[in-house]
Amino acid sequence: MKETNRQIVLASRPQGKVTSANFRLVETPVPELKEGQVLVRNHFLSVDPYMRSRMDDAKSYAAAQEIDVVMGGGTVGVVVESRNPAFATGQNVVGMLGWQLYGIDNGTNLRVIDTTHIPMSAYLGVVGMPGATAWYGLNKIIAPKAGETVVVSAASGAVGSVVGQLAKRQGCRAVGIAGGEEKCRAVVEEFGFDACVDYKAGNLYQDLKAATPKGIDGVFENVGGECFETALARMNPFGRVALCGLIAGYNGQEIPLRNVRSILMNRLMVRGFIVSDHLELWPQALGEIGMLVATGALKYRETVAQGLEQAPEAFIGLLSGRNFGKQVVKLI
Amino acid sequence: MKETNRQIVLASRPQGKVTSANFRLVETPVPELKEGQVLVRNHFLSVDPYMRSRMDDAKSYAAAQEIDVVMGGGTVGVVVESRNPAFATGQNVVGMLGWQLYGIDNGTNLRVIDTTHIPMSAYLGVVGMPGATAWYGLNKIIAPKAGETVVVSAASGAVGSVVGQLAKRQGCRAVGIAGGEEKCRAVVEEFGFDACVDYKAGNLYQDLKAATPKGIDGVFENVGGECFETALARMNPFGRVALCGLIAGYNGQEIPLRNVRSILMNRLMVRGFIVSDHLELWPQALGEIGMLVATGALKYRETVAQGLEQAPEAFIGLLSGRNFGKQVVKLI
Repeated sequence: MKETNRQIVLASRPQGKVTSANFRLVETPVPELKEGQVLVRNHFLSVDPYMRSRMDDAKSYAAAQEIDVVMGGGTVGVVVESRNPAFATGQNVVGMLGWQLYGIDNGTNLRVIDTTHIPMSAYLGVVGMPGATAWYGLNKIIAPKAGETVVVSAASGAVGSVVGQLAKRQGCRAVGIAGGEEKCRAVVEEFGFDACVDYKAGNLYQDLKAATPKGIDGVFENVGGECFETALARMNPFGRVALCGLIAGYNGQEIPLRNVRSILMNRLMVRGFIVSDHLELWPQALGEIGMLVATGALKYRETVAQGLEQAPEAFIGLLSGRNFGKQVVKLI
Repeated sequence: MKETNRQIVLASRPQGKVTSANFRLVETPVPELKEGQVLVRNHFLSVDPYMRSRMDDAKSYAAAQEIDVVMGGGTVGVVVESRNPAFATGQNVVGMLGWQLYGIDNGTNLRVIDTTHIPMSAYLGVVGMPGATAWYGLNKIIAPKAGETVVVSAASGAVGSVVGQLAKRQGCRAVGIAGGEEKCRAVVEEFGFDACVDYKAGNLYQDLKAATPKGIDGVFENVGGECFETALARMNPFGRVALCGLIAGYNGQEIPLRNVRSILMNRLMVRGFIVSDHLELWPQALGEIGMLVATGALKYRETVAQGLEQAPEAFIGLLSGRNFGKQVVKLI
């Protein structure tokens, strides 16, 4: 007798802000496995800003999330049944099984993980997609030289906190932008950034200027809007911008960008990217980051919501910056 | 007894739109040459969009134009006196002698030109800075593959008309954006673009969509504002934007850019550039273009204003698109 699966599906596309009414909890039986399939009991699921784009029907880098289908997303869990010789019951695996207690995969999207020195949930964050994102944008787009100044928005987040720490290890001045005193303090004291500017303090340009006395050479942009245009105003010639996210505009409103002129005047290079285009680099990226995490050299934070039914609220909170570090949902 | 020089100096910085009151015509004696100097009688002077940025006191890629000093800019002319062994009376030279009848240089900024197959004025346009700009942005930033679609704004201009012709020679679909039916017709019939969209017709998005059935892979952006954001809305994944000018915002008003989201979603690369950063490539660029011009394979147009005192009006007209092709001022 199979367990009952519980899933959160997309009930409707958001009109502007995401609300809990856009989601629906459903119960379904866990189906019998077919030859080659693996059944995973998810322990953690990931909520990430990119999911907001998928909820719209508009053109995006990811295919749109379909209505009445389980919300897609990264998961870590344990194999509870396997009809695939590559996977054994009891193995810890990371995958893309979505917002549900149980997921089935043919194995191509599952990877066995070692949780000896790295906790399971970290494979959704610092040693997962967000970590690889930080690594790629910093090393392959900004490519900073020692002594340069790198600015990171959403600096206390899953991606931003890694960007700043990696930049520091390369001899850069790392400056964060985050929302609120508490986050800013942690960005400096816990993640070791040289400075962090509170965009909620209402003095963004002057504060960023003070924190970047030699201007800005690289921007890792997660937010867009005012953060992005203020950073543009402080750029040095030949600066690079890794455009990773525009979370400030994810709730539907288009935020026009001022200071485009800086791209021309300072001969900047601005490149949008999505880390899943560069899967071939993940082993290198996550190998380097995993080593730093396992030895304690790279810090990270998580915000853990408890229970599948909390996933929508955790996601909504993420979009308004209520989380601190990687937002995950614990299912067990 | 020396001739009297006539010069146009910057009288005041523009508040918003440039007006003729921002300039003043002055007469000064032509000074005696010092050892090593060359006296040039200018035949043509160049007016270019970049000069608008220099008229402001704000940070720009070029040093600000100083008040009461002769307006800087490219010139072609004839050596009328030389105390420099590298230059002889009667030689044709291109230089940066500014808005005046006579200019003096120590020779480091002068280059002897061959006008056998290429008219003198073309060294200010297609075989000069605008041509090198077109070549650099197309080849070093957009770097299109055969079969890709390249869109060029200000397509009938000195830079844009070259971009499209070079793109066509590389097997691309070249689509222009220009203002008015007459310019658009010439872009297609004279410069050989596959299509040209009239931004003044009031239907820019739909018209650009129709002209780019396979989307856009490369944008050579001279204008900014609506042209730029409309092109962004048609970009294919991994498209490249060479940001060469933002003439739509040169009169002081900041035009915020919508569709920044496309940079992220389509993983675009947007790079601002200024061709004087890349002087090492000018010989290659102008060698290739010069050959095409001399053999008639590359077309260009000029708008010629007559007389030094017309330079301010020619420049003001350029900023509002009244010229067609390269705007020069004939001094003799």
